[in-house]
Amino acid sequence: MSPARVRSTTILLLAGLVLVAVALAGWSLWTMRNLESRAVPISTQIATDETDPAVFGRYYPLEYDSYRENSQISRGPSKYGGSEPYDRLAEYPYMKTLWKGYSFEKGYNEDRGHVYSLEDVKSTPRSPTQAVCLTCKSADVPGLIRKYGEKYYSMPFAQLSAEATHPIGCSDCHDPRTMELRITRPAFREAMARRGVDVDRATRREMRTYVCAQCHVEYYFQPGTSKLTFPWDKGFDPEEEYAYYQDLGFHDWVHPGAGTPLLKAQHPDFEVFQGSVHQAAGLACADCHMPYRREGNVKVTSHWWTSPLRHLDGTCTVCHTEDAELLKQRVFYTQDRVKDLLDRAGRALAAAIEAIQRATALPDADAEPIRKARDLHRQAQWYWDWCSAENSTGFHNPQKIMATLGKAIDLAHQARAAALAAVHAEASPGR
Amino acid sequence: MSPARVRSTTILLLAGLVLVAVALAGWSLWTMRNLESRAVPISTQIATDETDPAVFGRYYPLEYDSYRENSQISRGPSKYGGSEPYDRLAEYPYMKTLWKGYSFEKGYNEDRGHVYSLEDVKSTPRSPTQAVCLTCKSADVPGLIRKYGEKYYSMPFAQLSAEATHPIGCSDCHDPRTMELRITRPAFREAMARRGVDVDRATRREMRTYVCAQCHVEYYFQPGTSKLTFPWDKGFDPEEEYAYYQDLGFHDWVHPGAGTPLLKAQHPDFEVFQGSVHQAAGLACADCHMPYRREGNVKVTSHWWTSPLRHLDGTCTVCHTEDAELLKQRVFYTQDRVKDLLDRAGRALAAAIEAIQRATALPDADAEPIRKARDLHRQAQWYWDWCSAENSTGFHNPQKIMATLGKAIDLAHQARAAALAAVHAEASPGR
Repeated sequence: MSPARVRSTTILLLAGLVLVAVALAGWSLWTMRNLESRAVPISTQIATDETDPAVFGRYYPLEYDSYRENSQISRGPSKYGGSEPYDRLAEYPYMKTLWKGYSFEKGYNEDRGHVYSLEDVKSTPRSPTQAVCLTCKSADVPGLIRKYGEKYYSMPFAQLSAEATHPIGCSDCHDPRTMELRITRPAFREAMARRGVDVDRATRREMRTYVCAQCHVEYYFQPGTSKLTFPWDKGFDPEEEYAYYQDLGFHDWVHPGAGTPLLKAQHPDFEVFQGSVHQAAGLACADCHMPYRREGNVKVTSHWWTSPLRHLDGTCTVCHTEDAELLKQRVFYTQDRVKDLLDRAGRALAAAIEAIQRATALPDADAEPIRKARDLHRQAQWYWDWCSAENSTGFHNPQKIMATLGKAIDLAHQARAAALAAVHAEASPGR
Repeated sequence: MSPARVRSTTILLLAGLVLVAVALAGWSLWTMRNLESRAVPISTQIATDETDPAVFGRYYPLEYDSYRENSQISRGPSKYGGSEPYDRLAEYPYMKTLWKGYSFEKGYNEDRGHVYSLEDVKSTPRSPTQAVCLTCKSADVPGLIRKYGEKYYSMPFAQLSAEATHPIGCSDCHDPRTMELRITRPAFREAMARRGVDVDRATRREMRTYVCAQCHVEYYFQPGTSKLTFPWDKGFDPEEEYAYYQDLGFHDWVHPGAGTPLLKAQHPDFEVFQGSVHQAAGLACADCHMPYRREGNVKVTSHWWTSPLRHLDGTCTVCHTEDAELLKQRVFYTQDRVKDLLDRAGRALAAAIEAIQRATALPDADAEPIRKARDLHRQAQWYWDWCSAENSTGFHNPQKIMATLGKAIDLAHQARAAALAAVHAEASPGR
């Protein structure tokens, strides 16, 4: 090869290398852009009142794919939860006694995934009558509230559910234009405002909990208007919610056997989480329930709302360096013990109800011990239900749940003792 | 300066630098030797039967300094423990009712540091009569067991305690020649052997728990011989220890009011720890209770056996990256709730005892409900005491302690109900 030929070949080779380097750098930048793109506000062409998840899916196919996984039905790796709608009344036989006279005794199945929310609320044997029961079940609700105002809550369920098309979906938590997280349910916004918190000033980290807390909370319907309201004015602890209801003189129904005015607790997942070790460590709901996944070269937030037991490697192991199987066993270590306490409280409550029923059946039973027994029964059942209704069998906050169940057991037995004191026509021994 | 002068100055400077470097290297090696020296077997001149901590202190002045800190008396940063010998009977008024007829009703103070063990066992109002009560209180006990054989356990306390000079000390856990960790108390060695574990094959990590487990456990005295024995044949859970005692037909005393044959639980710290999150993570007692400290350029294992709350920065923060104050609040978050459950169980037990006492006082009460009430009372008090006697107010294993207390509350109320059924001469309603 001539020196000139060598020189030109070298130049060509170098030029080729430069081209490859530029291509690699470009590809890297493009990858980074994709990985980072979710963090900055963007602008879509989705209509601001769009509620159909499939429309969002055209712009966010990967997130939509994960959302569609919510249709999976299985008990999965969970011991006590899962998405299979098994009959919880059969699994916890005392529940029928505790909820006698209330809609829950008619049917209480483990819930299926969020994509079934509309279908399942329409077919539940609990037969809702007012539109308020639709509030957390359809992405179309914010539009219905805009349309009907606060009259919405007490309008007929059948009429309003016919106007709803989609189950829980993207628009419930995302602004369709910017994809920013947003609050769409008034009850949460109002309850936080009464606590002095302006949710419009929330950080992104807070929003990753707040969007879930629009629904995964204890609530009640205001007498008269049926307006959905969260009982948080005094705090998030079960004692504080109970004190709120006491001040209000509120009850959901009167137990037909015991004559006790009772409260029904609803999945207070957000409240249970307050004060937990994971909340204290700065975690949000989404950190464990919506892990990041890698799809090809893109980082995707999973929108399959399910137990973290399904994907321990993307959730727990981000912080905990232990083996995933060991971590799973730790979850069960807590849940097995919570299940035992739930059952002890449930059985003690059933025995209390039986005793109060006997006492009230007596022709000239003393009113005072019966009043005392009902007061204890009301408290005990609230504490038990608060723990029974939350969706983690205690894992969201083991200490708070186990302490609350210990209290429920104690109070339920006291209720029974007070009632039996009436049966035996004698003063109830003091505590 | 002449060129020759420049050269010789340069040589001198270089030589000086080399000397400094050699000195630095030597110092570094010496430092490393000191830092590492604790990990390799060594040979001291201490006699193999030496029990005086001060003699060990001549060879290990820094460890001895930390050992002497055990004389400090304060409640320290603890909310429920500390080394101030406050009257626990006054703090938990139901204890006197629960321990009626047993030595603990005479006096039960929070314990002081290990250096007071001999002094305090000699002056306790519980007035031990047999030498077995000295077993964990003096470094001289292994020598006494060698001297008297198994007769030691039932010999008069006054005689044997007069032969003991030193409190718990170095030789209880260390071979005086090699400083290797060792087991000096037969009960632990034998109990582990019955479980198929040869403690002479233990790893160093295991030994960092085992040396503590020679004493921080549930135990009983074998009827007849008074030989100290650990009830571990079926396992370490309170249910398994209870089953062991049931098989044995053992009781510590009969409650004079209730007539119930009861068990007294003793600080089952080792058993409580089994199954805990920290045990599952591979920690030993010494990891939290005997942190490494730096004294000048030497790494010293603290021999001040105290609450990790005193030195969070050398214990918790080795693994947990959170702020020490936040970690402390987490400990209290658990302990506050455990304290509430302890008190609920204690009060329920006191009420059960009162009811059984009433039932037994009746001239022709049915024997069967009273037998049932006593059986439930025996179980409930065991579970409560197991949690009350351990030294962490539940922190050693929150889930196990809270589940056990929930069970104690449930069973105590059932005991009361069974007794009242006898009082009212009617069948006790089934659970």
